[in-house]
Amino acid sequence: MPVGTQATVKAVTPDELRALGAKIILGNTYHLHVRPGEEVIRELGGLHSFMGWDRSILTDSGGFQVFSLSKLRRITREGVHFQNHLDGTPTFIGPETSMQIQRDLGSDVVMAFDECPPFPCSYEDAAKSLELTTHWEGRSRAWWHTQPEEGRPLLFGIVQGSSFADLREQSARSLVEIGFDGYAVGGVSVGEPEPEMMKAVEWSVPFLPETAPRYAMGLGTPPQLVEMVARGIDMFDCVLPTRIARNGTAFTAEGTINLKNAPFTRDPRPIEEGCTCHACATFSRAYLRHLVKAEEILGLRLITLHNLHFYLTLMRRIRASILDGSFQEFREKFVSGYRVWKAEE
Amino acid sequence: MPVGTQATVKAVTPDELRALGAKIILGNTYHLHVRPGEEVIRELGGLHSFMGWDRSILTDSGGFQVFSLSKLRRITREGVHFQNHLDGTPTFIGPETSMQIQRDLGSDVVMAFDECPPFPCSYEDAAKSLELTTHWEGRSRAWWHTQPEEGRPLLFGIVQGSSFADLREQSARSLVEIGFDGYAVGGVSVGEPEPEMMKAVEWSVPFLPETAPRYAMGLGTPPQLVEMVARGIDMFDCVLPTRIARNGTAFTAEGTINLKNAPFTRDPRPIEEGCTCHACATFSRAYLRHLVKAEEILGLRLITLHNLHFYLTLMRRIRASILDGSFQEFREKFVSGYRVWKAEE
Repeated sequence: MPVGTQATVKAVTPDELRALGAKIILGNTYHLHVRPGEEVIRELGGLHSFMGWDRSILTDSGGFQVFSLSKLRRITREGVHFQNHLDGTPTFIGPETSMQIQRDLGSDVVMAFDECPPFPCSYEDAAKSLELTTHWEGRSRAWWHTQPEEGRPLLFGIVQGSSFADLREQSARSLVEIGFDGYAVGGVSVGEPEPEMMKAVEWSVPFLPETAPRYAMGLGTPPQLVEMVARGIDMFDCVLPTRIARNGTAFTAEGTINLKNAPFTRDPRPIEEGCTCHACATFSRAYLRHLVKAEEILGLRLITLHNLHFYLTLMRRIRASILDGSFQEFREKFVSGYRVWKAEE
Repeated sequence: MPVGTQATVKAVTPDELRALGAKIILGNTYHLHVRPGEEVIRELGGLHSFMGWDRSILTDSGGFQVFSLSKLRRITREGVHFQNHLDGTPTFIGPETSMQIQRDLGSDVVMAFDECPPFPCSYEDAAKSLELTTHWEGRSRAWWHTQPEEGRPLLFGIVQGSSFADLREQSARSLVEIGFDGYAVGGVSVGEPEPEMMKAVEWSVPFLPETAPRYAMGLGTPPQLVEMVARGIDMFDCVLPTRIARNGTAFTAEGTINLKNAPFTRDPRPIEEGCTCHACATFSRAYLRHLVKAEEILGLRLITLHNLHFYLTLMRRIRASILDGSFQEFREKFVSGYRVWKAEE
């Protein structure tokens, strides 16, 4: 899922997203609640109509951003009191508020409200946080099922439990008992080393039903996506393709390249040979480098298109390889051929 | 002509420009010389190939930017020594250099090298500057005609003479004597009041041949375009549609609106009722306002598209009204219905 935090996938039109083959995007409940507000979006016909996107939208619960962006938080059993990051307006979001906002936005896949503990986190804190998350997720489910069943969007639960195997298992089992339409693994990609991230998934997935979609939140690099699929994950959302494009960085099957770099000055090749995206079909690395160096918006637009194409094509290839039984081969070849993305890019 | 200073019309792809019906764009010789350099562009197949634009390109001479952007200028009869505005590299541009750069870029319409005096300017300084300009334009013409005639791009001369009727006349007559494929009025839109701008054109046009295109450089607001056409001008380049879009300002037939403004928060209408551009066909003022307030690139992209559509449609309407004999009626109605653009927007 391309990430459309503020009712737009950054720098891209809905037409372009459709042409890329995107079928679902993510919207951020916290951001949309703060600006322009769900009542504005509802008045304009809901998020689909507001942003001109006629395919599916998944909204997160707002929990993660409340914990990562807002100021002066006070967490009670009811929910979270905070001041928003834009103008400091005092706000409260609890499970029922989050459900109501996502309902007003007109989301197709709604996420239950959870607390996302930081990394690292002591066992005691993680257990205490998980107890609250499970309570909030139960209330999310209860509120949601007060809504008419006809046309009701899907509701996903979120596994927490930090980096503790027994808490992850306990969380997954509790969620399945509550009963959701799909299950996410949360509390990953919060600063933990990659092995910890993989373990969080490995500790959660075995206790989630095979018949429901499984979603790893906020991930990841291309090899991480492949490895997560190998562990049973079906869905991802990730800001990397759009975020690093704005820094001039493009994905290729051999790893990322930063188009600011001098060797591309006279390079007539596309970002990636054989790529069918608009940027690669039309423009050279030399031109893209010039645009990035000159801080022209067209540069980040074109690299964003390429990166989204790369991610969506990667997922299409993974699906095809699963269907024809060649996934393990694809996995080994792809992961070994990919130079790991470095933060300094 | 949409302005593509650094080998891109800001925030717009060549495909979008074609869809808007743009037939020619402007590129800035000074900027392209400084970055990435004409030798890079020539190596990548010329400016058309480099930026993926298969229709016409007019390049300016670089003179205006040398005088407005560069540091430590020293003007001699040969040309201008200066340090570029990016990294201070000492550079020289004279008439022959300017012609060579524009030739390397692969321009379709080349502008002669001129000096653009500031406003206000004493009669003595204006006359002295004009003498140098006429000398440089003659040398531009001489260099150009050393090139093979087959496939040689067009060369336009530029009328200078500041705000003095006799100097404008003298400049125009000298240029016609030298002989160019088209004629521009330069030294306008350099800070002078609008009546001065109109006079500069009125003093120049009568001495330019009706059979050659006449081009007013760096103009203007929509009513200014209409008024200039009434005075015999055929071509314009203007950064306004793209520049003010980046500030959230959109053109309409009644004047500009700034989409940041609060009254648009819940406004379901398009920027302009009846407009057929992609932004107006798809998105509400409320959505565009949200994008602008949230500093999302998609906002300025969509407003840029609308503004370019507005300008190109205005010129198409002017042409149609000239052909069917209704230009005077169109002019009066348009100019009286347009609220003048204010700088504070």
